[in-house]
Order: sequence, then structure tokens, then C-alpha cells
Amino acid sequence: MPRVLLCGELRWAEEECKEIFRGIAEVVRLESPSRAEFLADCKPGGKYDAVVGIYRNNLSIGYIDVFDKELVEHLPLSLKWIAHQGAGYDKVDVQACKARGITVSNTPGAVDDATATTALYLMISALRHFAHAEQTLRVGRWKSSHKAGDAHDLTGRTLAILGLGGIGLRLAELARSFPMRIMYHARSRNPRGPAWCEYFGADRLDEMLAQADVLSIHIPLRSDTAGFVDERMIRKLKKGAVIVNTARGKVVDEDAMIRALEDGHLGGVGLDVYPNEPKVNSRLFEFPNATLLPHMGAATGDTMKKMEVRALTNLRDFVVHGQCADIVPEHRQ
Amino acid sequence: MPRVLLCGELRWAEEECKEIFRGIAEVVRLESPSRAEFLADCKPGGKYDAVVGIYRNNLSIGYIDVFDKELVEHLPLSLKWIAHQGAGYDKVDVQACKARGITVSNTPGAVDDATATTALYLMISALRHFAHAEQTLRVGRWKSSHKAGDAHDLTGRTLAILGLGGIGLRLAELARSFPMRIMYHARSRNPRGPAWCEYFGADRLDEMLAQADVLSIHIPLRSDTAGFVDERMIRKLKKGAVIVNTARGKVVDEDAMIRALEDGHLGGVGLDVYPNEPKVNSRLFEFPNATLLPHMGAATGDTMKKMEVRALTNLRDFVVHGQCADIVPEHRQ
Repeated sequence: MPRVLLCGELRWAEEECKEIFRGIAEVVRLESPSRAEFLADCKPGGKYDAVVGIYRNNLSIGYIDVFDKELVEHLPLSLKWIAHQGAGYDKVDVQACKARGITVSNTPGAVDDATATTALYLMISALRHFAHAEQTLRVGRWKSSHKAGDAHDLTGRTLAILGLGGIGLRLAELARSFPMRIMYHARSRNPRGPAWCEYFGADRLDEMLAQADVLSIHIPLRSDTAGFVDERMIRKLKKGAVIVNTARGKVVDEDAMIRALEDGHLGGVGLDVYPNEPKVNSRLFEFPNATLLPHMGAATGDTMKKMEVRALTNLRDFVVHGQCADIVPEHRQ
Repeated sequence: MPRVLLCGELRWAEEECKEIFRGIAEVVRLESPSRAEFLADCKPGGKYDAVVGIYRNNLSIGYIDVFDKELVEHLPLSLKWIAHQGAGYDKVDVQACKARGITVSNTPGAVDDATATTALYLMISALRHFAHAEQTLRVGRWKSSHKAGDAHDLTGRTLAILGLGGIGLRLAELARSFPMRIMYHARSRNPRGPAWCEYFGADRLDEMLAQADVLSIHIPLRSDTAGFVDERMIRKLKKGAVIVNTARGKVVDEDAMIRALEDGHLGGVGLDVYPNEPKVNSRLFEFPNATLLPHMGAATGDTMKKMEVRALTNLRDFVVHGQCADIVPEHRQ
């Protein structure tokens, strides 16, 4: 029977895991307490000998660190598939995997709803100045710091979405209910995007930014998207606009964003992600209209279970069919 | 020319006020620094002699206190109309006004969108444990206190709305976009309520409560609604349910609510209103999953201006037509 390895423990779908692999594969657990021992255990004749597929989550970082080039190159020669649990897979070096003939999948759809809800919350808080109002109340100053004139309704305002994948599309649907006007920029038009999502290509990106009350970021972190939201883009936003980021901290030039908060170009930010998590740049704490969450966009029991089940199912499909529904786009290039 | 009195200053619609009453009425300002002086100035021959209509907002409380029975009974004999600025008008004794032949209006629709958005924010925060997560992050503990299993998606959950007026209906629309299942209780079925809003009359109130993940309160404070959400009702909610209140603090039995938070019957609360504002019961600060805003449900520049213009327009309509669109329901009984 083929062997699969769980890199990182299951928290929600232990029972489902048994059923998913019953009669299909032998499930091996990560038992290496350090990266060095993991690499040794990957050698022929080691603990993970003959493993064909890996289920991987970010909890495994605590034991063996990220799946970078070094780690990928030391994985068992038998390995063909890595089923990553999570929408973002920047902790896996996909190019190194491709070079080794290993196919990578993620769990894109499972987090759409929870993450888009987080973006909606951050957008409401930033436009209405809610998070800061709560801080004021909790130190006994009621609404002393609140000026209604600084607070804005969502209804009738313009939301610009950067990246109309599953999460961006879901946010578009939620924001549409107010309604907000919805614009988006992506490398290409999303054929699933409804007509009321106005597409702005690279040649019209500045035009979109100049009209946006809110810019919400939903592009993955890759080498070509790191720092994509840079000083120039931020300055093209209209004065008082708000940036919401539930994608990855490094997609934004944090220094440029902080400068724009300092000089009042930005009216606020709503952030769930940071460049150096779990560190948060303490300068962000100085701005009253910054709503700051600890990367929990997808952190609901419902979603976590959906993600684990989906990643395990991807791994099963790899073993049974040699492919799965969620192979990451890099393999299609 | 008839005289109208502005009880409380305008903050957003000073220019509009001039236009609204141009050629229609003489606008007199509140110039009495205390209640005693106001009552004296209302006497025949006083500053407010011959005033037929009053524009009133809650800022006037700081000078002359609320429009209770005593104050209403001392208003000029010429007075026929009070155009209150705001959705809630519990600071005006409508029965005393009726007894004097004074008709009262409020500004119901203007706050619907902003207040429903506030309720949505509080609901997201309570189900996802966001406000507490931000507090944890801001004291340098990242997401140490967060358990994803305690956090819930809105999608697929059940929202029970108490009072399907303009605000409740607006919240229903916003929550429907997830979708959530929407139920409501009111004294009678709202003919404007869409088919997907399931009505539960008084005889089926318990049935509704037992199914609700969230109870959001949207009934006005009146003598018959004070303490309406009492111990019995709270205990009929299922374990872990969340209460959201953007209506008035006194509609809920606060002690009963706090007991239910203490013993874990309630999973959280999202509050914008309190029984003794601006005082907030400090016991509420003890519960991690309490999101607490300082009564700012309608506090956006957009909405504040809409409300001022609407109240001024109601007063103009009273003067010109003897009636307006927003006469409070007590006059229809």
C-alpha cells in the first residue's frame, strides 16, 4: 500500500482522515523533532522511505521549518505530490518542487468565505472608525475621540479589489449587497467575474486607484507580487482612501503605507497580515484608524475543518488518480 | 411669518437649513443656557413666543435636558409640532405631547443603513472573536488567546431579528448576502418583509430563540419594551448564541445578560448601546468576547447630514402642510 506522510498534525479532521485513506494508503506521521533529523529521516531506508505524497500544513514549520529549496531537494525520491493545507502556499518552494517532478496543491476555495468576511469587517471598521472607538471606550473616554465627519458609510462608496480570485470574488458579492461600486484589477479579466465587477487592466490601474475609497488586497505572495502595492500605487489612491490587506503582508510596501498614514494620504488601514509575522511593526499602533488582526482571516472552526478535509482529499485524489482539483497554477505554466 | 425653534445646534446642514425655511418660517435659535431659563423663555412674551414648531436633537439635552412631561407642559401654547432628529425618540415624552396636541416626528429611514452596518460589524466581531483578537495583538500577544474552534462563519448560521423596522430590514438584506437564515419577531408581520424573512409571532417567540445563533435587537425603547429581552428570553436562546444590540440599552435586562455571559450560556455580545450612557457597566469589560462601541450606530457624516436635513424637512412640511412623512407611530394609535 502506498505511504503518505502528514507533515503537521490534524486539528479538526482526525476521524475523516482515517476514512479518507482507509484501504488506499498507509498514513505516516511526522516524527522528526528538527529539520536536521527530518532530512536524515527522508533518506532511503529512513522513516519516510517510499512516501509518495505529503499532507502539509504551516504547523509543521515549528518542527522542520518551511518547504524551501533545501528541504524539497532532500525529500524522498519516491515523493510525487504535496497537498498543502491553506490558500496561500508561499511556505512551499513550488519551483523547487517542479524541478523535482513533485506536484503541489493547495486548498483555495475553503477559505474564501471566512477571509472575505474578515476583509469586510476590516473595511467596515476602517470606514467607520470602530476599532479605535472601542479602544477609547475601554479606557473610559466614551466616544470622545470620534468625529462623525471622519466616518463613512460603505453604501455608495467604491471598492477596488486587487486580485479577483475566490476571496476577492466573495468580497465583491458581500460588498455588492450594500451596494458598493466594485472595481478590480488582475493580470487578466476573470471570466467568472459578474458584469458589475468593472475590470481595470494594467494600463488602467491608475484610473482604478484614483476612484477607490477602499483598496482590498487579494493577490498571493510570489516573487513577482512582493511589494506590488508600492509607494507609487499608494500615492495614486485618492486622499483618505483605506487599504485592507487579508492576503500577505509582503505584498505591500509597509514603509510606504506607514508614510501615507503619517501624512494623512491614507484615511486608515485594516490589516490581518504583516511582513514579519508574528511581529507587528509597532509604528502601526500609533495610528488611531488602524484596525489590526493577528492573521486570522480563515480562522474559524468551520473553515479549518473544510481546509483539512480538502487537503486530505487532494492527497487521496493524487494517490488514486494521479491528480487533484486544486493543483497550484504554477504547474499550468 | 411663522416661527420655528432649533433646539440643539445643527452640525451638518446649516446651509440647507437657510434654504429649507427661506420665505416659509423665521428660524429662532435656542438661547437658554439652562432648563429653568428655557421654561421661563417659553412663557407668553418670552423669547420663544408664538413658536409653532421645534426642531430638536439630543445635543439640546446638554442645555435643557430631555423633553419630559414637565418640559412639554411648559412649551409655548402656540406649539403644534416637534421634529425630532434621530430614529429613537425616547428622550421625548410623546404621550405628554399628544395630551398637549403636539405632533412628533422622527427620522427613521436616515439611520437604517449606518445602524444596520454597525449591527453587521458587531455580529461579525462576536462570531469571529475579532475585537478581542485585536486587543490581544495590541498587548503583544499575537493570537495567543484565539481558538479557531470558538470562531464561527456567518454563512449558514441563523440570525433572529427583534423588530423588523427599517434597520432590522436593512440588516436582514445585508446578512442575506452571506447567506444567513433570517427570522424575525415583531408585534405583527411586516408587509414589506421579503418571503425569506421568516416571521415568528408572540406565540412562536421561544421557537425562534431556540434556533438563533445571533439575536439582533431593533425595537425602540418604550415603556412596554424596557427590559423586553429578559432573563427568560435570554435563557431560551441556544447555548453559545450571541446578542447584538444597536437599539437601546434598556431594552435588555443587562444583569441577566451579564449572568448569561458569566456562566457561558451566551457566546458573546456586540453592543453599541447601554442602559446608562455614557456609563458602561465595567463588568462588561471582563468578558473577552464582548465587542463594545460607544453608541455610534448612526454616526457617519453621511448619515448625520441626512438626519438633520430630514428632520428640518419634516418641520418645514409641518409648517407648510400641517403634516409630514415621519410622524411617530404613537399618533396613529
